[in-house]
Order: sequence, then structure tokens, then C-alpha cells
Amino acid sequence: MGLLKLEVLFSNTARGMKPSPIRELLPYIKRPGMISFAGGNPDPMIFPIDEFAECSDILAQNGKEVLQYGPTDGYAPLKDFISRWMAPRMGRAVEPSELLITTGSQQGMDLLCAALINPGDYIIVEDPTYPGAIHTMRNRGAEFLTVPCDKDGLLVDLLPKMIESARNSGHALKFIYTIVNFQNPAGSTLSTERRKKLLEIAAFYDIIVFEDDPYGHLRYDGTDEPTLFSMDTDGRVIYACSFSKILAPGARVAWITGHKDIIRKMVLVKQGVDMCTSVVAQALVSRYCEKGYLDSFLPKIIAHYKKKRDGMAEAFKKYLPGYVEYDIPKGGFFFWLKIPGVDTEKLFHNAIDKGVAFVHGRSFYACGGGENCLRTCFTFAQEDDLLEGSRRLRAAIDGTRP
Amino acid sequence: MGLLKLEVLFSNTARGMKPSPIRELLPYIKRPGMISFAGGNPDPMIFPIDEFAECSDILAQNGKEVLQYGPTDGYAPLKDFISRWMAPRMGRAVEPSELLITTGSQQGMDLLCAALINPGDYIIVEDPTYPGAIHTMRNRGAEFLTVPCDKDGLLVDLLPKMIESARNSGHALKFIYTIVNFQNPAGSTLSTERRKKLLEIAAFYDIIVFEDDPYGHLRYDGTDEPTLFSMDTDGRVIYACSFSKILAPGARVAWITGHKDIIRKMVLVKQGVDMCTSVVAQALVSRYCEKGYLDSFLPKIIAHYKKKRDGMAEAFKKYLPGYVEYDIPKGGFFFWLKIPGVDTEKLFHNAIDKGVAFVHGRSFYACGGGENCLRTCFTFAQEDDLLEGSRRLRAAIDGTRP
Repeated sequence: MGLLKLEVLFSNTARGMKPSPIRELLPYIKRPGMISFAGGNPDPMIFPIDEFAECSDILAQNGKEVLQYGPTDGYAPLKDFISRWMAPRMGRAVEPSELLITTGSQQGMDLLCAALINPGDYIIVEDPTYPGAIHTMRNRGAEFLTVPCDKDGLLVDLLPKMIESARNSGHALKFIYTIVNFQNPAGSTLSTERRKKLLEIAAFYDIIVFEDDPYGHLRYDGTDEPTLFSMDTDGRVIYACSFSKILAPGARVAWITGHKDIIRKMVLVKQGVDMCTSVVAQALVSRYCEKGYLDSFLPKIIAHYKKKRDGMAEAFKKYLPGYVEYDIPKGGFFFWLKIPGVDTEKLFHNAIDKGVAFVHGRSFYACGGGENCLRTCFTFAQEDDLLEGSRRLRAAIDGTRP
Repeated sequence: MGLLKLEVLFSNTARGMKPSPIRELLPYIKRPGMISFAGGNPDPMIFPIDEFAECSDILAQNGKEVLQYGPTDGYAPLKDFISRWMAPRMGRAVEPSELLITTGSQQGMDLLCAALINPGDYIIVEDPTYPGAIHTMRNRGAEFLTVPCDKDGLLVDLLPKMIESARNSGHALKFIYTIVNFQNPAGSTLSTERRKKLLEIAAFYDIIVFEDDPYGHLRYDGTDEPTLFSMDTDGRVIYACSFSKILAPGARVAWITGHKDIIRKMVLVKQGVDMCTSVVAQALVSRYCEKGYLDSFLPKIIAHYKKKRDGMAEAFKKYLPGYVEYDIPKGGFFFWLKIPGVDTEKLFHNAIDKGVAFVHGRSFYACGGGENCLRTCFTFAQEDDLLEGSRRLRAAIDGTRP
């Protein structure tokens, strides 16, 4: 008898598991007076609170259905809406069998990995990429190969050699993960030419492409590139999008679209994972969309975030020294900064002391790198704080440089 | 170039994955005129629709928090409520670090398996047990050892030999899974004496006990047994409960309580799985509880389901032939029937033709068995349908017997 030998009991994955780097920043961010450029949070000041609350009429009107267990693949009216609403971007209205509602895009990623990844299988990811994706994929046993990005997105020309060398080494390559629009964290958007090339390469090597597009609707300059999904003729592109950035992350409602056989496997996994996404949350989102609020809210949020993007660009111009390198993103949530000679993990702790938070670069590299980089989010902080946070960041840089 | 060789791409788990047996019954159940004794669904006629809808005031009042990402371990006011409300059952108010809000109890199970199970590890489950648990655990790579149950729950005396023999064979045994109250499907409740013995055995062999208790609040006769959690002095009991059966499964809000180191690992997994349970759903449930509706609804739902339990008992007495064996459950959702000589999978198809659905026995056995058994749920069907469904079931039995 006695205490549990817990370390022995934990699974291999759980034993080696590291926290999601951004989730673990929450205690820092919540310190009084802290200005957060860290998490990719939408601005709560622009949440469509009244419109969303108004949609709770569906709870009274349709309570018998909404309070009951729902189908694992999602609340049918919401699936209908998404299929219609996304048709211009997807190139067609996808079938119900090709569409799965998920508890946030994070779950779509997790289910896709459960369906495709055996421990030790490889995923090609961008360098840098979204840390939440690395966390989820690693927890499902994935290993990584990384492709660098420039301002036009991932360097597709490097893929063939990488794929061939991985296959020659006997590695099972399961898919290429790419955030095509306003990449998290780099801010870049994959050019049309590279999209074409990526699909050609994927077809030649018969490999799946996972197109993650949480920011695609949030473009502040220029015109939209076609989705990989719409350009694909083989059924090899899995496309994920979410209401988190264009409505409210607290709903935890997102969706994933792809080949019906893959979606079907994901549905089977989801049956054991959470049975179905909150029907209550899905119904509220569905009603919100049907009332036309999503369409009327989008231009408002785009104007709002464009102003904030400009605010951070101005603040950086004013406060950041000339040797800090960055591009101004054309959409999305983030600036990606390179500060030659500065270790941004060290900088992070100095910045916290000065009262500003960001995410340091190492978090975004699946196989190491990013020591001199950092990501700042411009959507969450309020206008004055964009200036003051940048001033603090400068002070932290000055205190960190060798 | 060409089509994807999908079967090659799927993970080993996905390739062998079977659908959750109950979820897959939905198409049958939805046939017009079908009376369903199949799924474990609450009665939508008694959902507290007006009270729940009234709680949507929290969306307007607290929208900035409720629409934003929430902490992975759960919405703090809901955690506070659960800790206070459950204290009499748990023996104490559990700490926030010991409590995790999950997207349904199904997710609690999945996260626990992710934290503890390596492929090939063993879990001891009851024979019969909840098919959703088998599905989830199998998807995480678990193998099973099964302990039979009688009317006082699992036969704890069989455990020591089973544990020793498993360990002698070099199997890693990770935990014992038990539905202690109004077991799904058997309807039995573990006696206090056996609870004591189970904990002694678990302590002696240093093994974790996962106490799943979705039906514990729904007792129609007799008095409550103490929870295993409240009797445990070692921190080895993980306890799961849910709002699905006592409020509304469509919310997908449940909770799991246990040793803080295990909960912490589960939080890390959840970061990558869905980031957090729908804050919108949690906030609605939280407000509902705080307004006292949970406490005022419970006696109502208990009286309602007791009447339905009695209704099914009467109907079975009237229609089922003497050789059909069953006990009348003291709580929960289910009757468990044994029909000697009748293959209940065959019976199922005949019953569907007659217009009544149930779940056949094989679904509840992790390692085979249950050919002559079936589960009927009495909470979902309406009063007249309890009679008519039983009449149809009798007709199906008559048409199936050799």
C-alpha cells in the first residue's frame, strides 16, 4: 500500500509532454498592468455581444433539439450554412459527408492526426508555424520535417528533395501542414503561383495537404488568393476554418472539410472524443449566421483590425530601432519580428518586467530555431496600449542587447 | 499522380476503428414511427428549456469573458459551483487543481486514457460496460480485462487473481474502470462492502480506480452509497460526473476530479485537443446552477424518471414472457434483459422491423459475450410508447425464438 508511483503510470506521451507555450503564458498576461501582445486573442471590445445574446432565442424555440445529444458530424442547419457561405471560397458547396463541425480548429487538427498518424510518422510543417499545431501533432506521436518560409509563404521548391529524402530513409510522410493566409506567426500569404506548385508536388508524391485557414477572412489590403481546396482536383486537400477569429473563440465552434473517407474516420474518432460539439454553442452560432450577423460583422471587424494593424505598425516605426526586421502583414493577427543578436527568450523575461508580453520565437519552430524572433499580436491590445507596449518592448530590447 | 491510397495513409487505430455502436443506431432510431429504447437519451419533454434559456442573460452581461478563449481547466465560476455542490458526495470541497471541466464525460475518459495509456496497456472494465468507454479506450490503444457483475456490482473478489495473473504475464495494468451507481447497462449499484473491498485491493496492488458516475444523482429507491472518491485516502480515485443526464447533454459540459498531477497531465492534453470546453456552454450551465435551477430541477426529474422506470417495469410485466430475466433498477436510465436462447443481434433486426429499437448485448462486452442480452432505456420514450414498444419487443422475440 502507499502513494501512487505516478510517473510510472503516465503514458510515454504524457511523461514527455510539454505545455502549449501560449496557454502557459496566461499567468504572466494576467498580471495587473501587463500589456499583452502574446496570445492570438480577438479584441473583446468588438465582440458582437448583443447580436450573439439575441440569438439565444433559439434555446427557447428549439430547446428539445438543442439540449439533446446531437449528431457527431455537427448541427445540420450550421453545416448547411457553412456549405453555402463558404462555396465561393471552396469553389463549390461541399457535401454534408465532406464537412465536420469541430470543438475549435484545434480539435480538427487532433482528429486528423488521430486518423492519419502512427507514432513516428512525419508531418511537413512550416518554419515557423503555429505552436498549438506542433503541440497537438506531437501529442499524437508525429515527428516533423520543416520547410522555411519567406514573404510569399512556404518555399515549395524545397519540398521534392525533402520528400524524397524522407521516403528514402523509410519515413512515413502523412501530410503537409500549411497556414496559407496571413500565416501564424510569419504573417505571409502563399502566392497563387506557389499554391499551384504545391498542389502539383502533392499530386506527384501523392501526399495530403492540410490547409489551415483561420485568418483567411481577415484581409486588410489586396485581394484574396484562391484556396488550395478550390484548386485541388484529387480530393487531397483538407481545409480547416473557424468562428474563433471572425466571431468568438469562446463558442469553440469550427469546421473541417475534406475527402469524405477521411472525414468519416474523423467522425469515428470524435464519437469517442466528445460525442459531438456543444449543440448549444452550435445552435447559437448557427442562428447568428442565419440572421445575417456574420456577414454584417465581417466588414466591421476588418476595419477595426486594420486600424489596429496600422496602429502597431506606427508604434513599431516610432519605437523599434532600425535593426529590428519585420514586414507589415496584409491580414490576420500578427507581426513577426527578427532582432539580430537578441535572444528573444531572454528578452521575454525583461519584457515581462517592463510590463509587455509577446511569444518568443522558439515556440514556433518544430525542430529548433527562432532564437532571434518573436511574435506580436495586434488585435487584443487597445489602441493606446499598442503605443505604450511598443515603448516598453523597446526598453526591454535596450536592456537585453549585449 | 492519381487518387489517394487512403487505406495506406490511415493510422493503425483508424484502420481498425469500429463505429461507436450506439451512435451508429441513429439512422434506425430516426425512422418514422420507431419507438427507441436504444440510446441513453434524457427525455426532451422534461428539459428545463425556459430556465436554461433565461440563463442566456449571462451572454449579454459577461460577453467579453464568455466569448473569449477560456482557461483550459474550465470556467472558474462553474468550477467553484461544482466544488461546493459536490462536497457532500465527494467528502470535501475539491481544490481547483483537482477539477477539470470536460466536453462531456466522454472527453474526460479520452483525456485520462491519453495521460495513462500506452498502446497495449490494460484497463480492467466491468462485463458488461458502457460501449462508449470501450470505444474511447480502444482508440487510445487500450486492451481489456473484464470482471463480471451481479446485482451488487462488480465481483471484486475476482480482482486479485486477475491483477496478479496480468502482472505475471508482464501486462501494464493502468486502471480499473467502474460505473458504480445504476451501472450502464446492468443497472446494478456497487454495495458499500464491495466499495471498501475494491479500494483495499486497489491500494494493495497500487492501481488507479476510475469511478464514472453519470447516474449517481438519479436514484428512485433506497439511499445513496458513498462515492469511492470520498472513501479513498490515497488519491487513487478519479471521479467523473456530468450535466448530460441531470440537465442537458447538448451543452456538452461535464467534469472530472482526481489527483492534481493526473489532472494536470489531462489539462496539457486538453490544450491540444480543444483548448477549452465551450465557454458559452459552461457559462450558461454555470448561471443555471447559480440560480438554483439545478437543485430545484433534480427532484422533478427524479420523480419523472421514476414514473417512467415504473412504466417500463409494468409494460415488461405485461408483455415479456416469463423466461426473460431482468431486475428493476433503483436508478439511472436502463433495464438489462437476458433472453435465454435468443441471439439479441438477430432480435434487433426483427425488432427494428416491428418498430422498436434497443441496443443488443454484444456492444457492452469488451472481450466478447452478451449474445443473449439487451439494454432498454426507459427515459427517452414517452409513456404510451413504453407499453407499445414492449408489445412490439414481445412480437419480435416471438418471431426470433428458435
